[in-house]
Formats: sequence, C-alpha cells, structure tokens
Amino acid sequence: MEYSIDRFAAMTESAIAALKYPATAPGLYEPIKYALASGGKRLRPALCLAVYAALSHRDPAEVINQALAVEMFHNFTLLHDDVMDCADIRRGRPTVHRRWGENAAILSGDAMLTMAYGLLTDNAGDKFPALFEEFNRTAMEVYQGQQLDMEFENRSDVTVAEYIEMIKLKTSVLLGCACRLGAIAAGAEASVCDSFYAYGVAMGLAFQLRDDWLDTFGDPAIFGKEIGGDIINKKKTWLLINAMAEMPDELPAILAEDLEDREKIRQVTAAYRSLHLDHRCSELANRYSADAITALGNVALDKDALAFFTALAESAATRNH
Amino acid sequence: MEYSIDRFAAMTESAIAALKYPATAPGLYEPIKYALASGGKRLRPALCLAVYAALSHRDPAEVINQALAVEMFHNFTLLHDDVMDCADIRRGRPTVHRRWGENAAILSGDAMLTMAYGLLTDNAGDKFPALFEEFNRTAMEVYQGQQLDMEFENRSDVTVAEYIEMIKLKTSVLLGCACRLGAIAAGAEASVCDSFYAYGVAMGLAFQLRDDWLDTFGDPAIFGKEIGGDIINKKKTWLLINAMAEMPDELPAILAEDLEDREKIRQVTAAYRSLHLDHRCSELANRYSADAITALGNVALDKDALAFFTALAESAATRNH
Repeated sequence: MEYSIDRFAAMTESAIAALKYPATAPGLYEPIKYALASGGKRLRPALCLAVYAALSHRDPAEVINQALAVEMFHNFTLLHDDVMDCADIRRGRPTVHRRWGENAAILSGDAMLTMAYGLLTDNAGDKFPALFEEFNRTAMEVYQGQQLDMEFENRSDVTVAEYIEMIKLKTSVLLGCACRLGAIAAGAEASVCDSFYAYGVAMGLAFQLRDDWLDTFGDPAIFGKEIGGDIINKKKTWLLINAMAEMPDELPAILAEDLEDREKIRQVTAAYRSLHLDHRCSELANRYSADAITALGNVALDKDALAFFTALAESAATRNH
Repeated sequence: MEYSIDRFAAMTESAIAALKYPATAPGLYEPIKYALASGGKRLRPALCLAVYAALSHRDPAEVINQALAVEMFHNFTLLHDDVMDCADIRRGRPTVHRRWGENAAILSGDAMLTMAYGLLTDNAGDKFPALFEEFNRTAMEVYQGQQLDMEFENRSDVTVAEYIEMIKLKTSVLLGCACRLGAIAAGAEASVCDSFYAYGVAMGLAFQLRDDWLDTFGDPAIFGKEIGGDIINKKKTWLLINAMAEMPDELPAILAEDLEDREKIRQVTAAYRSLHLDHRCSELANRYSADAITALGNVALDKDALAFFTALAESAATRNH
C-alpha cells in the first residue's frame, strides 16, 4: 500500500472529474464544477482515504464518495465565505460570486451542501447513521466557527483562547471529521475513531497557525501570495491578538496611522518580531503537530501508514506554501 | 383521530418553540428563531403529520421532527431566496437579511439546512435511508426550481410548460416530499407513498397557481397584501406568460409604457380579463386540485382522513389568502 498525498489527491481529482450532475437547470452546476476544479491541496479527502486504507487494509477507492463529501462541503463553505468576505480571488481565479454573481454563489453553494450529504451516504450501508451524525455535527461547528470569526471582526477584546476555539471550529474539526469518517467506514472501534479525530483536529490547528505565520513571515516567491494581507486587513490572527495584548498602546497606534501598505506591514512585522511572535507561533504550531502524532500513539498502524501520518502532521506546521 | 389543519399547525408551533440550539455562537441562532417564529400556514409539516396519522393510525407527534425538518428546510429557502430577491418584507416583518445583514441570512440559512437534516433523521431507525433519500432528492429539485426561476427573469420566451415545471420544482415537490416522508415513516408500501407524493405535488401546483391568481385578482382586505405586486415587478407568472403569448404586441407595449403603478395594474388586469385568464387560471388550479384528490383514489383511508385531504386540496385552489 502506497501512502502519498499526491496519490490521494490524484484519486480525488479523478473522482471530481467523473462526478455526475442532474440534467435539469445546468446553470446550477457550472459554478460547482468551476469551484471543484480549482485545485487546492485536497488535504481533507486525502485524510479520509488514508485513514480508511490504514485501518481496513482495503482499497481507499471504496470511500472515495465519503472523501468527496468532505471536499464538497469544504468548497461549499468557501463559496459562501467568499460572498460574506467580499473576496475577489480564490486560488488565483475570480471567486464564484465575482464570475457568476452573488445569487449563483449562494444557490450553487446550497446545492453543494446537499450534494455533500448525498455523497456522504452513498453506498454507506450500516455505517449510514454514524457517518451522517459525524458529518452533521461537524457542519454545525463549522458554521459556529464562521459566526465567531465574523463576530470577532467587531470586537477588540478577543483573547487567544477564543481565537484558538474559533479556528478549531472553523477549520480544524473538518479535518478531524475527514479522519473519523474514514475510521467509521473502516469499521474501527470508537477509541480508534476518537484518536484519529484528535489527530485531525490538532493537525488542523497547526495548519491554521502556520497559515497565520506564512501570511506575515512567508517567502512570497514560495508562498504564492502577497505577504502582509492579514496586516492590511487588520485580520484578527494569532499574531495580532497576542501583539494587541502585549503592546496595548503601540500596536493600535501603528494600525491607526495613515501609512503606505508596505510601511505598515514593515512596522507591524517588526513589532511582531520584537515580541518573538514569529518563533512563538512556530513553536505553538509544532506543539499541535506533535499532539497530532501523539494522538495516534495507541493506534496499531503499519510502518508506512505511521510514517505518512507523521510526515503530514509535521508538514502542517512547517510547510512553506 | 381529529384531523384539522389548526391542530397540526399548533403541534408544529409548540415543537418549534421547544427546539434546542447549541450554546456555542448564539448569534447564529437568533435569525433562525426569528424566521421560524414568524408563522406561516405550516402546511408542509401538517401534511407530514396528517399522512403519518392517516396511514399508521398512531400519534402524529411521533413524526414531529420529520415534519419540522420540512418546515426548517422551507424556511431556509426563504432566507436565501429573500437575499437573492432583495426582498425587504416577509410575513409582515423585515426579512432576516434586512434585520441582521446578508451574511447572517446566508450563514444562518446554511445552519438551518444542516439542522433540517438533523431533524429529519432523528430517531429514524430503519427508515433513515428512505427518509434521507427522499429529502435529499427533493432539496436538489428545489434548488433547480429556484435556478430556473432566476433564469426566467432574463428570458422573454418562457413557455407555460416551462413555468409549470419551474413551480413544480420550486414549490410543489416539497409538498409532495412532506407527504411521502409521513408515508415512509408510517411504513406504507411504495404505491401508497407514490400516491401521497402525487397528491402533494398536484396540490402544490394548485396552491401556486392560486397564488398567482390572488396577487392580481384577490381581495386586498382578505389577501392581506397589496394587489398587483407581480404586475409591477413584471414577474413571470402563469398569467403574464399566457398573456404575452396571446397578446404579443399589446402586452409588452403596456408593460413598457411609463404609467403610474395603479394605472399599469388596471391596464394589465384588464388585458388578463379580456383573455379570460382569471377564469382559466382558476380552472387550471381546480383541475390540479382534482388531480390531487384522484391520486388518493386507491389509498385505503378512513372517512375523516379522506375528508381532511379532500378539503385541503380544494382549499389550495380556492383559498382567498
């Protein structure tokens, strides 16, 4: 059994290309095909496929629809989040609402959520209720995370603990869910399902903290995006929340100053560095990554599988793009 | 067993009032509570409850969550449709996006869809897959209907057949679904499920055609809404589509003319009457209502149940509000 993120991503791409859509109202599906074809890391389906293969020693293709359900759900949230955030660009291309309008992004997003449920339960047999329950609870948590994220925009007293709770809900639980769906489909016992869920959630936290880090300290040539977008948008990242707490006078002053973008980024980044937030953020991401690996300590895995999950968790905290 | 729409509506109201929401991110649930508390006929849950009671001779409260799932889904579509249509008022109150903003309407709407799935499958036992399949297919059809409705706005060649297909998808199939969910939960055989589905769909068509009729020919004192809104908005109703086909020169001329609202409504209404569209629309609604009753011809129902379903179908085509 070959465990590689590229192999799982390729399986996902093929399955996306082979998805069938109803014949009625084809305009509903164009934005969906566009959104799904725009790439991304396919990390969530890869987790579902890898966990299933590792625990069942069977062909991961058997759970491709459950893996796609998570990817479909993830892309549904991106469609709606991009409307809410007025985002113009996603993965280097115009967002769905920029290309087809807001109404299309809302309605096709709704259809994606329903299609995700359809994929999740396809051929699910006696696993139907357990898969469904896991997915449904996670979906509610993701909305809660987005709600908190929006509420944080209008608050100046967000704590680090609240931030971690928010990114856990908005991002990490879906990675945990992807893992647990693979484990449920493999017929794993509850403690193994829980271990893989904990693995996914901890990895998701590492992943998101690295995202915050990359947006400020990344190498633009490798990162593939402009650096400093979060600073310009005053986005309440882990870095900003800590800096606001530790420099309660200086940081708001810099943010409020009428500076050119580059200069603002330079000053805020310097403030972050003076507080060692670059190192502290990396350390915290590494700690979550280690937690993820620890969570699998009691799960019986063959060498290849363990190496795969270990490397994946490490890369979440250390990746450069 | 007492069959009355008021009794079923009251059961629905109590269950809505008793709904439990998660503690995290309470802001997500305020718009949901508001939308669900704004009344409406509760026709869809009533159908689910009544069909279950009629076929199982058991307490309809046993399927209250499945009935609520349909009502929750219906209200989710209203939240998102109101954003898409830029509607300000719903049931006499500001729409959710007017009161909390568009982002809240989108996100809380998403949460309602997921909550609907949760209600649908609550305590579903071995009926889980059948209930789910019916609900999921219907949801896709409702989106298709909304997509067609939006596409029709930009087309001048919509046929009556296309219009009927659109309202069937956008409105009627959900009434059919509400009936079928009740039948599935009651353990009815497939032919009985199909009969009740056909009943709901035909009743839905009668209901929607009566809606078109009321907006132009209703008595404002009883209807509770301004008359002529569809005419002012050039909404492609059954009346307008027929009139455009039968008066291809005169009607577009009236619509294009720069007239005061009241005068435009007067002239278009006169054109409709000259084509007898008021009678023809009523006749067609009555025919669908009769189709609904015919669909139940082979279902064994006791006298009270049959009287209830017959009166409900008749009122869909003849109601004045």
